Amino acid sequence: MSEVESDERYRYFLPITTRWMDNDVYGHINNVTYYSYFDTVANHYLIHEGGLDIHTASIIGLVVESKCSYRAPLAYPDRLRAGLRVDKLGNRSVTYGIGIFKEGESQAAAHGYFVHVFVDRQTRKAVAMPERLREALARITVA
Amino acid sequence: MSEVESDERYRYFLPITTRWMDNDVYGHINNVTYYSYFDTVANHYLIHEGGLDIHTASIIGLVVESKCSYRAPLAYPDRLRAGLRVDKLGNRSVTYGIGIFKEGESQAAAHGYFVHVFVDRQTRKAVAMPERLREALARITVA
Amino acid sequence: MSEVESDERYRYFLPITTRWMDNDVYGHINNVTYYSYFDTVANHYLIHEGGLDIHTASIIGLVVESKCSYRAPLAYPDRLRAGLRVDKLGNRSVTYGIGIFKEGESQAAAHGYFVHVFVDRQTRKAVAMPERLREALARITVA
Amino acid sequence: MSEVESDERYRYFLPITTRWMDNDVYGHINNVTYYSYFDTVANHYLIHEGGLDIHTASIIGLVVESKCSYRAPLAYPDRLRAGLRVDKLGNRSVTYGIGIFKEGESQAAAHGYFVHVFVDRQTRKAVAMPERLREALARITVA
Repeated sequence: MSEVESDERYRYFLPITTRWMDNDVYGHINNVTYYSYFDTVANHYLIHEGGLDIHTASIIGLVVESKCSYRAPLAYPDRLRAGLRVDKLGNRSVTYGIGIFKEGESQAAAHGYFVHVFVDRQTRKAVAMPERLREALARITVA
Repeated sequence: MSEVESDERYRYFLPITTRWMDNDVYGHINNVTYYSYFDTVANHYLIHEGGLDIHTASIIGLVVESKCSYRAPLAYPDRLRAGLRVDKLGNRSVTYGIGIFKEGESQAAAHGYFVHVFVDRQTRKAVAMPERLREALARITVA
Repeated sequence: MSEVESDERYRYFLPITTRWMDNDVYGHINNVTYYSYFDTVANHYLIHEGGLDIHTASIIGLVVESKCSYRAPLAYPDRLRAGLRVDKLGNRSVTYGIGIFKEGESQAAAHGYFVHVFVDRQTRKAVAMPERLREALARITVA
Repeated sequence: MSEVESDERYRYFLPITTRWMDNDVYGHINNVTYYSYFDTVANHYLIHEGGLDIHTASIIGLVVESKCSYRAPLAYPDRLRAGLRVDKLGNRSVTYGIGIFKEGESQAAAHGYFVHVFVDRQTRKAVAMPERLREALARITVA
């Protein structure tokens, strides 16, 4: 991960509204909460572009690793954008790159990644992701 | 509270974006999370319309009671609106009425209230709210 | 609900460990978070005493109403106890009474209730609760 | 980070009680929530062993980077332990190593780290940490 991440490096954006309880005792959005934005933008893409039904699909995405670097503080009631790209795409797993931007800004206030391994909902064994899902992820894959 | 709450009964609206982790193991937004929407819309109004600085103001609003009735399920990735009104306005306290609406719907999926008592940030004793704040609340008070 | 709730009025207790992010910008546990303690103690009882399997049981408990009154502030890293009783027991629904206590104290810092309606996991229609579950709830019902 | 982390590698342990809402729609503790355990154990140590007053101290710890690797699923109502050590100790910053263990198990279900930079509460400029705090961190530093 580079030290600076501009929004040009992301391929899909989702508005995120902050919440009162996102702020911690030090007055800024708690570091934990950024990861909930990560989950939110990636699954939004899987659902709306990849055709994933999170309630009934035979596969589910399990997170095996995640990381975030925090560059600038954010605070409720800021309005945010989460940017998504794919950094690495396998048959059974995907690494998402994610940037969190304050509305109107082009430099990420935080950026990181997480890795989804797709598994069978019942057996929890790794399986190849469906074609439609993989194609959707391929469209936002960055070299 | 009536059994049905339409959006005509609210005076201020805020978009709320849902998050992956809002859904619980039963597939819908957890009952707890609605209260985070309550906090979010009310403080948004206090900050943007009432001039409250949540970091430095000499007064803070403490919640002394809250209630919610759940009418219809919501789930991530639904887009929501939170509607706000004031049901009762005192000098030191306010009761907010709040409805949570799925985007595009006029009947609340959930509605409830909470009571803020304004206290001095240091002593935590109840104090009269500032004039500007009270005027903002008066503007959305419903008879 | 009375104004004061002592721990003598509850029949089942669960330790709750607070978390850094429970504290909000005003330095105390956010009002929203108390409801997560409510959910936690009640489902703990349903699972451990009532035999509920939250992953596979044919019934699930949906929350239709909840309320909380806040009497004294709590803050991370306080250690807490949640007290549980049943205030009203039907065939398809139950009203839990819950008190949140700072460790070593007998007066609740907050108390409230919530109502579970048991429904079929697939149809989401109200159904009678299983005998074992109802017996467990009957054991902690307070006149 | 090695692939396997046993509890022998940690120097301070804190019990963590899971919550109903920790479970996500796939039935396990959401990946985001682990980071709230990270915050909780590290600040617990800073407060109880390092003498940090999170409400009034002139310094605060800001998180600049965090990472977690997930090895085995956990789910409410599991009881957990968080293990803490210091991997790297500077004058103004510290890298904590953290493992999350299911009660009774010695292999971490998840492990990771986060970096605190200590800053002045008002100016938010990096400052040297107080002697007592640094000594406490030195006691759990692992070569």
